[in-house]
Amino acid sequence: MYTIQQLQTIIAEKIQKEADRIGATEPLNLYHPVSYTLNMGGKRLRPVMALLAYNMFRDDIEKAFPAALAIEIFHNFTLLHDDIMDCADMRRGQPVVHKKFSENAAILSGDAMSILAYQYILQTELPDIRQVTQLFSQTAIEICEGQQYDMDFETRMDVTIGEYLEMIRLKTAVLLACSLKAGALAAGADQPVADSLYEFGINLGMAFQLQDDLLDVFADEEKFGKTIGGDITTNKKTFLLLKALELAKEKTKQQLLGWITAKRFDISEKIDAVRKIYSELNIQQITQNEIEAFYKAAMKNLDELAVPQDRKNGLVSLSEMMMKRDH
Amino acid sequence: MYTIQQLQTIIAEKIQKEADRIGATEPLNLYHPVSYTLNMGGKRLRPVMALLAYNMFRDDIEKAFPAALAIEIFHNFTLLHDDIMDCADMRRGQPVVHKKFSENAAILSGDAMSILAYQYILQTELPDIRQVTQLFSQTAIEICEGQQYDMDFETRMDVTIGEYLEMIRLKTAVLLACSLKAGALAAGADQPVADSLYEFGINLGMAFQLQDDLLDVFADEEKFGKTIGGDITTNKKTFLLLKALELAKEKTKQQLLGWITAKRFDISEKIDAVRKIYSELNIQQITQNEIEAFYKAAMKNLDELAVPQDRKNGLVSLSEMMMKRDH
Repeated sequence: MYTIQQLQTIIAEKIQKEADRIGATEPLNLYHPVSYTLNMGGKRLRPVMALLAYNMFRDDIEKAFPAALAIEIFHNFTLLHDDIMDCADMRRGQPVVHKKFSENAAILSGDAMSILAYQYILQTELPDIRQVTQLFSQTAIEICEGQQYDMDFETRMDVTIGEYLEMIRLKTAVLLACSLKAGALAAGADQPVADSLYEFGINLGMAFQLQDDLLDVFADEEKFGKTIGGDITTNKKTFLLLKALELAKEKTKQQLLGWITAKRFDISEKIDAVRKIYSELNIQQITQNEIEAFYKAAMKNLDELAVPQDRKNGLVSLSEMMMKRDH
Repeated sequence: MYTIQQLQTIIAEKIQKEADRIGATEPLNLYHPVSYTLNMGGKRLRPVMALLAYNMFRDDIEKAFPAALAIEIFHNFTLLHDDIMDCADMRRGQPVVHKKFSENAAILSGDAMSILAYQYILQTELPDIRQVTQLFSQTAIEICEGQQYDMDFETRMDVTIGEYLEMIRLKTAVLLACSLKAGALAAGADQPVADSLYEFGINLGMAFQLQDDLLDVFADEEKFGKTIGGDITTNKKTFLLLKALELAKEKTKQQLLGWITAKRFDISEKIDAVRKIYSELNIQQITQNEIEAFYKAAMKNLDELAVPQDRKNGLVSLSEMMMKRDH
């Protein structure tokens, strides 16, 4: 079996090759922003997951390239359009497409990426591509739904923890789950095995996103590699904030709501104040417990998977790697 | 066989039913703009073409609904995103989505429509859906390319007639051709017949778009049902303008370029002046000849189609209907 690092190198090279090919296609104003987006980099987590899942069953991993590329291109398409909707300026240290090119370029090149993603998934070598394409399509629409809930929550003050968990399931977890299942389907895995891998991906994805929320508040800024407190500054209704609002007594709750509704504030003062309230309410530990519950559920899915134990090593390593991002 | 009017009624009802179902799905902020867009109306030309093509071979036309709906939803998605890019305010007498809802709603709901279109095409009842889905996907990416060329041409002064014809082939003709071929494939038609129907659709689509350009300049405003001269006002590099620039002697060419580059002008004065130049250069007749060449090619495709003559009547009627829009 390939190691995660080997798969990362292999798929990074493949993505760059495809990006260069796409970027040289006419009309250049359509395809250049596509290759720019794909070349922005990243850990290539989702295509690696697709290759890892494929590699549990077969060694000719190039057969999983179409699914892996489809998923990475679709993921980058959602980032591209999300950046327009969020009025973001930069991503991974580089100007976003709607700043570097134009908003129209970002809209249309994004549309093209969504279609290109389908073109890759349709290249999967299977006797019947209906199931893998429907899985991909169902995931794609769920990601749109997750993004809509995320935007809806910005202006709602009555978001429940259940609603939040459903939002991150749609916005983040389903694509990780889809990556694994698509890889398994491409390898011709049995339906129950493919379905269990999907469940594993959902639980791992939930743990991953909740940890992302936690790190945004409590991580060591240097090790985490991005600015801390962004979610607090923008009043994002994460698990941490919703749990704090649920647990806080009246006076603390009013303090917290005061910071959320404040029109003018000093950013670092706000971050410190909210973080202090979180500490008083033991939010860090409570979130950590929630993360561990999802992580344990994922490990249980993996234990129960009807695949030889030594074939699961890649996914175990990946899970550990994903959950240790601040070390 | 069904008449065109019957098919229009059947598909209009089906679209409304689907639009209502989609519009009642959570999150409403995502799906309400989708149903709003689908309920804006229109002649439903593309889904009717899919049903007509299917009906050449089989009578159980409900089997062609998934392909017909996919194509109509995709077409409406392109209108939705084009309206953002063109900064349009109104469509079919109603406010466009980015005005009625918000720009973010227009972006994200459009993305969802593109994915929904794939979900419908994937419901086509065929032993192997790869071909029809690849046809749809290839068409979809070509439409993006057409839109990009159209936007590129706005700032280019060296557009050739060949480039213009290729742009309208991509932006308009391929979706009409895809509608026919998808209907034929859904009915299990032979490959050569499906391919010939595609060619017929391309030629008919070219004639249709060139006539649209012609009517925008020379139609009877009341009968045409929309304002005349829009292409002249916005300096759109249509066949008419490009042919006029090609044929005009130096003095007339400078007059024409003067109008195109003018920053300030009286709209009706500009329309009258450009129309007068077109008349001097016999542009109306030349365009009419071009339209007839494409139309004749379409009729030749239809004649040569290996299908009983009486089964072609629907497509003959549709072609006549499409080419007599100002009468």
